[in-house]
Amino acid sequence: MSEAREKMKVELLSITPDAEILIERAGRTCYQSEKAVTIESAREFIPKLIKMGHESPLEHAYATFRVTGGSRAMTHQLVRHRLCSFSQQSQRYVSETNFEYVVPESVPAEMVDDFKADMESIRQMYIRWKDRGLKSEDARFVLPNACTSEIVISANFRQFRHIFRLRCDKHAQWEIRAICRDMLFKLYNVAPSVFQDVLDKVVEQDRQVPDR
Amino acid sequence: MSEAREKMKVELLSITPDAEILIERAGRTCYQSEKAVTIESAREFIPKLIKMGHESPLEHAYATFRVTGGSRAMTHQLVRHRLCSFSQQSQRYVSETNFEYVVPESVPAEMVDDFKADMESIRQMYIRWKDRGLKSEDARFVLPNACTSEIVISANFRQFRHIFRLRCDKHAQWEIRAICRDMLFKLYNVAPSVFQDVLDKVVEQDRQVPDR
Amino acid sequence: MSEAREKMKVELLSITPDAEILIERAGRTCYQSEKAVTIESAREFIPKLIKMGHESPLEHAYATFRVTGGSRAMTHQLVRHRLCSFSQQSQRYVSETNFEYVVPESVPAEMVDDFKADMESIRQMYIRWKDRGLKSEDARFVLPNACTSEIVISANFRQFRHIFRLRCDKHAQWEIRAICRDMLFKLYNVAPSVFQDVLDKVVEQDRQVPDR
Amino acid sequence: MSEAREKMKVELLSITPDAEILIERAGRTCYQSEKAVTIESAREFIPKLIKMGHESPLEHAYATFRVTGGSRAMTHQLVRHRLCSFSQQSQRYVSETNFEYVVPESVPAEMVDDFKADMESIRQMYIRWKDRGLKSEDARFVLPNACTSEIVISANFRQFRHIFRLRCDKHAQWEIRAICRDMLFKLYNVAPSVFQDVLDKVVEQDRQVPDR
Repeated sequence: MSEAREKMKVELLSITPDAEILIERAGRTCYQSEKAVTIESAREFIPKLIKMGHESPLEHAYATFRVTGGSRAMTHQLVRHRLCSFSQQSQRYVSETNFEYVVPESVPAEMVDDFKADMESIRQMYIRWKDRGLKSEDARFVLPNACTSEIVISANFRQFRHIFRLRCDKHAQWEIRAICRDMLFKLYNVAPSVFQDVLDKVVEQDRQVPDR
Repeated sequence: MSEAREKMKVELLSITPDAEILIERAGRTCYQSEKAVTIESAREFIPKLIKMGHESPLEHAYATFRVTGGSRAMTHQLVRHRLCSFSQQSQRYVSETNFEYVVPESVPAEMVDDFKADMESIRQMYIRWKDRGLKSEDARFVLPNACTSEIVISANFRQFRHIFRLRCDKHAQWEIRAICRDMLFKLYNVAPSVFQDVLDKVVEQDRQVPDR
Repeated sequence: MSEAREKMKVELLSITPDAEILIERAGRTCYQSEKAVTIESAREFIPKLIKMGHESPLEHAYATFRVTGGSRAMTHQLVRHRLCSFSQQSQRYVSETNFEYVVPESVPAEMVDDFKADMESIRQMYIRWKDRGLKSEDARFVLPNACTSEIVISANFRQFRHIFRLRCDKHAQWEIRAICRDMLFKLYNVAPSVFQDVLDKVVEQDRQVPDR
Repeated sequence: MSEAREKMKVELLSITPDAEILIERAGRTCYQSEKAVTIESAREFIPKLIKMGHESPLEHAYATFRVTGGSRAMTHQLVRHRLCSFSQQSQRYVSETNFEYVVPESVPAEMVDDFKADMESIRQMYIRWKDRGLKSEDARFVLPNACTSEIVISANFRQFRHIFRLRCDKHAQWEIRAICRDMLFKLYNVAPSVFQDVLDKVVEQDRQVPDR
């Protein structure tokens, strides 16, 4: 595992309690079929909803993650998802003198020190501009995309399914892909009936194109 | 209390656990000030966010309500809120032979029986069209706005604040107003720091224009 | 053609000028390939975007329709599309003494007069409640789903594609299906490269299940 | 005017034709008062809608801008507006060997050459990583926030009003503020009745805190 992946951390901060049961109860409101609820019925009912393309009841369950150790290159992509809520570390208000950074996985092992040296050169530029009196919000203009940025993301399960389908794909940027895989595994653990088909596709793709 | 209000029921199905703490933690991500968190800090921090107009961290907390006994007149308004998720009893798939209905509060007590007689006439029309072979989805064309419709609604706290400001106002339709007041009281109980200012306005308005 | 369809009217009020050219120019921003634009290039470029699943540039073009002669049963479905903008005739502020209504297509020709008689009975109820002093917003509780309601709808082309895929399908309610087919034909005329694949599916389905 | 502002360009690519007339016609649908339309009525009607807080008819008019010469620091903020559509120059697919950059206005004139030297150092890093075989999407990790990024943005007028209120404020970041002021002036020219009150506030603020 690369150094970048080791440092990247995805933490499940919050999730709707008994999410599958809530989804079933909401979904059965449409058909007024709540009497059919049993202790195990959700895990049969939800995959049926998904197959019919009736995904709106999945919107009643939510999860919130904290992602640390991801680059600003990645977060600039992530925040493009408009049906999510984000709280992100601000470079306007927080000094980045001690910024951390992501080394891309494609940097060969023998060149990682060169990459780090470049980062340190840029850090010196940032510090100099701060010393010359620039505010954080302007000094940050020299900061690299590699800078890590902490971000909290919330979305409903339907939206997470959409994000995972796009971003766990092998054409996605490697960093956002790794983060989304991690979120998918965590949500699958809690609500397998909601994420089974999405997970199956990821597993199938891994078989064909092994994840690095 | 009118008969309509007695029958209307607002049930809190689900809510983000420890919502205020989650909001504080998300909000402090922007400023990287998590070290300032104490057991009581959320209730000071959140009103400050609101005063600054920095409401996005409130989006990380969610609630889901089931509303029963409200009219289709009311739900047609409610579903216009686009940053919510809804699951609603379908008149296409569910037979309405035994539909219940809302008697508007402005119907004088001595005329309530007349209103009920009208409803029963319409019920007979519906049954006749079903007997003549129309599907539920077409027979429902005779059904009145007064028909009750069960609906499950989810939204984040920021969006609920927006809805309450609009719909708890004395200019709002009486039914949606009553439902939104009920939802506001229930959310205030759980997360007072998020809804205090909205509640204060409702209380202030009640003082001036007593709720019927 | 049934009476209902004859009365239903879909009018294109406004559309982005030179929509396909705008979409191409926006889409090429991502790749910085504007030099490839020729007078005919949009109609090759846009289908390629769609095939790649890169539909976001389609969001820069918009259309606005006025739909008249549709029922409130239909509009209650239509307004569930949350990425649209709506302005709808209000039953709170507009008196409905002369309301018009939709006769469902499945009402047999020999029973249409019965349906109309039911509507007239309900009209008398409404007038009586107005005469007894109820405001429009409460008298409307007796009004039927069949009541027509004028509505103006705006959305971007990506969203219209989504709506058409759902609502032109043979499982959709007949009225919303007829309206969406009409909107699709009108948009296809102006921007064929954006709607070709959606239209093809509708034509294919017609071949299998002839539209009534 | 600083060099940064000279290079920043905001171009109105597209706008709803006869936007004010369309908004009036849509807004009057709610009240069924279309007969009141005259050649001049929109400019009286629209400010009334806004005063009543009935802003939804403003959503039927749209504008699309191309912004060039803005930094990635600015676009990362801009794309946080979720009710907009964006097409942005990709650093994954476009080589940035010749990237341009924004010099923050707060860099003193005598230090601008130092800032440019820093940018050239970073350009050399980027070129070196490309030469060593990294793809654009990974080499870009060294690129600075100052890099310009072309972006096309579309939104409806209600949303633009919201953005302008937030981003033309004196607390906003200087670059996004300058861009939003420019967009506001351009939209005010075409639809003064929609943007008059927002413009008035900006003018008032300029009187108190002169724009640099």
